[in-house]
Amino acid sequence: MPVSGRTRLFAVLGDPVTQVKAPALLNAEFALLGADAVLVPVHAPAARLAEVVGGLKAAGNVDGLLVTVPHKLAVCAYADELSEAAALAGSANALRREPDGRWFADNFDGAGFVRGLAGSGHRVRGLRVFLAGAGGAGLAVAAALLSGGAEHVVVRDPDRARVAALVDRLGARWPGRVTAAPAARADTSVDPVVARGTDLAVNATPLGLRAGDPLPFAPRDLAPGTLVADLVMEPHETPLLRAAAACGLGIHHGIHMLRCQIELYSHFFRLTATPGI
Amino acid sequence: MPVSGRTRLFAVLGDPVTQVKAPALLNAEFALLGADAVLVPVHAPAARLAEVVGGLKAAGNVDGLLVTVPHKLAVCAYADELSEAAALAGSANALRREPDGRWFADNFDGAGFVRGLAGSGHRVRGLRVFLAGAGGAGLAVAAALLSGGAEHVVVRDPDRARVAALVDRLGARWPGRVTAAPAARADTSVDPVVARGTDLAVNATPLGLRAGDPLPFAPRDLAPGTLVADLVMEPHETPLLRAAAACGLGIHHGIHMLRCQIELYSHFFRLTATPGI
Repeated sequence: MPVSGRTRLFAVLGDPVTQVKAPALLNAEFALLGADAVLVPVHAPAARLAEVVGGLKAAGNVDGLLVTVPHKLAVCAYADELSEAAALAGSANALRREPDGRWFADNFDGAGFVRGLAGSGHRVRGLRVFLAGAGGAGLAVAAALLSGGAEHVVVRDPDRARVAALVDRLGARWPGRVTAAPAARADTSVDPVVARGTDLAVNATPLGLRAGDPLPFAPRDLAPGTLVADLVMEPHETPLLRAAAACGLGIHHGIHMLRCQIELYSHFFRLTATPGI
Repeated sequence: MPVSGRTRLFAVLGDPVTQVKAPALLNAEFALLGADAVLVPVHAPAARLAEVVGGLKAAGNVDGLLVTVPHKLAVCAYADELSEAAALAGSANALRREPDGRWFADNFDGAGFVRGLAGSGHRVRGLRVFLAGAGGAGLAVAAALLSGGAEHVVVRDPDRARVAALVDRLGARWPGRVTAAPAARADTSVDPVVARGTDLAVNATPLGLRAGDPLPFAPRDLAPGTLVADLVMEPHETPLLRAAAACGLGIHHGIHMLRCQIELYSHFFRLTATPGI
């Protein structure tokens, strides 16, 4: 549907923003639904997020925002209300204008990841998870996995304070089901005890985005039958996924999380009825 | 071209904004040029213009703005530099980000109108013009007509102070070639002396936008052979143009001004080489 004066606006905020894939996917969804709306990328430099969000909120035809790195935490300050998932994760990746003009924030990273797993035929209930990365994405994914019935999540991140904060926060909600991995070594190896108790290993660090990044962990240390998932979606075949496949492990691409978020977004933005889970 | 994370943004600001036709036209031009860019409407309520413009300027991938009613005057305050046409008109309808980050404002209403006349085969040099409306659009059109060689412009507006300001401003540049029409009567009639000396009668008031508006002036008072032009482009066939055609006068639609501005805009935004005049 061509853009006209009546088209409603949605913006995806990031710094950088050139890598975002949401416009292609969500605009296709808008077209499918016959919604006169467009999602555009908005490059919001970290230091100017307040101005950019303030300007978009002041515009009468902006109905919602998507938020990516590095703004997911900071953007919570501009919401009038947080969903349970956003409050738990302390970060948001979607905001919408409510009929009364207030802004409501939610976080679909975790739900999108879990829906993506389920959609690819992987059972979440009972999963024992090894998670690399205790940042915003890691927190959201861990919360959604526990909420979806995962047995436990073992978290590793070079930033030990971040791991402790994640364990504290999610442990309060799911006692004993989220723990810190043994102190990370300088290399990428996975502790053998952790590896033996892992059904699903997830990369929620940005490692793999840039050519030459080290692996977030070594797939060769994982037991046969372990599924390796990457949240990085550009490149599609990350070095981690290539290494995992070379070891004969199952792999799960980053794009699934985003694809599954698209229908959650269009529901969140009130463009569709509730999607089936 | 579908919107991606790399797409450059342009916004057209108005209050309201639903009536704007620039997105359809300029996006078609972008597609023609193979430019990865999109123009979206942004509803900037008058009281929140500073926030909206501030937010768009803070966004790194917004390269330019188009501006419509009621923001053409106010937006000049947010430009670092004004073109001669914008300075003369005291209003702007296009702003672009310069390579050094400064914002440069220009006004293409007048140039677009004059190009539209020429493109429809009407000679501007020597024209004797009757202009209804001494607002921003009227000022821009009068300046461009005089600059293009029109012999003189007679201006009428119920707001006599606005007429005096226009005559002062343009008279300083084109002495003796711009005058106030005799005091407007309560009705829409055109002074017979003015009518006899008119080759082109232009409506630069908003009258005709809304159903039930009175005519800005009565075409029946004009001499045979007078061309009647309307800046109102929605509806396409305004009551003024219908009345003029019914009197056997030539008519010139509002859309020509916008169509001719489109190529000026794409040049202004550095998406094309200079268009031929």
